[in-house]
Amino acid sequence: MRVLGIDPGLRNLGWGVIDAEGSHLRHVANGICHSAGDDLALRLLSLHRQLTAVLRDHAPDAAAVEQTFVNKDAVATLKLGQARGIALLVPAQAGLLVGEYAPNAVKKAVVGVGHADKVQVQHMVRLQLPGVVIAGADAADALAIAICHAHHLQSAGRLAAAVARGARQ
Amino acid sequence: MRVLGIDPGLRNLGWGVIDAEGSHLRHVANGICHSAGDDLALRLLSLHRQLTAVLRDHAPDAAAVEQTFVNKDAVATLKLGQARGIALLVPAQAGLLVGEYAPNAVKKAVVGVGHADKVQVQHMVRLQLPGVVIAGADAADALAIAICHAHHLQSAGRLAAAVARGARQ
Repeated sequence: MRVLGIDPGLRNLGWGVIDAEGSHLRHVANGICHSAGDDLALRLLSLHRQLTAVLRDHAPDAAAVEQTFVNKDAVATLKLGQARGIALLVPAQAGLLVGEYAPNAVKKAVVGVGHADKVQVQHMVRLQLPGVVIAGADAADALAIAICHAHHLQSAGRLAAAVARGARQ
Repeated sequence: MRVLGIDPGLRNLGWGVIDAEGSHLRHVANGICHSAGDDLALRLLSLHRQLTAVLRDHAPDAAAVEQTFVNKDAVATLKLGQARGIALLVPAQAGLLVGEYAPNAVKKAVVGVGHADKVQVQHMVRLQLPGVVIAGADAADALAIAICHAHHLQSAGRLAAAVARGARQ
């Protein structure tokens, strides 16, 4: 199963794609979609095009987006929301269900504790995806979200399999 | 010139289309795109599809979106931002430049004062668009945004024409 993780942002939108086979994870690709300029609609259009190309190039089976809403600055929160709208829309347009994870859930899944810092997260991403070259901090976060979603889907799959075994007995 | 105004919201996204010929305005259509349910990505996808259909049906030449960011509740601001991302994206995908106006600029353009209430705005929208049947409060706001944008584009057009006349003399 191929999983796409997205760390939304208006200036830098990180993305990471991994393959998950049982508990084995493999890095596929990661990168950052950039947008700049004064025209907000054109920036969102640019992010939409770049992220649509990522989905076309890597054809993920599942996607997840970081669920960030704690921000004291309303202007920054609105900007993030606009980028997040695009991050959620693009996989939905590709017919994927889109998971959402709070940052501490992502850290817990990748590092084992919810309060890990960025350096720890990047270290664990590198350990779990041998040979990965990370495009930047936002791409590292996106790979962490993909790992978190892969773990979650595998647990759900094991649970479903256990329930099916139980039903057969 | 045909102008689309959009009042973004995740649950109710208002839209209004008017024709502007000189200072004469004519109502074309207005409505509200609704989204409901627990899956945020599917709600945004639904808004995207409904708004794309509005642009296909009415083929506006210009579009404008209300610029709202003052909100003390970060969760509500993020929700609004996500819907606003879709509201800005769809006209940009149709190749339109998208104007943005603060609520008090819209009120000033439609009512004459920046602190007008919703009842005054709806009253002036009805006066300026004879025969209009308004689908709801969000659609009324969207028509007001379209009127504001039409005024702005006409002023800009008059200015450009005056500059051109000056250059010829």
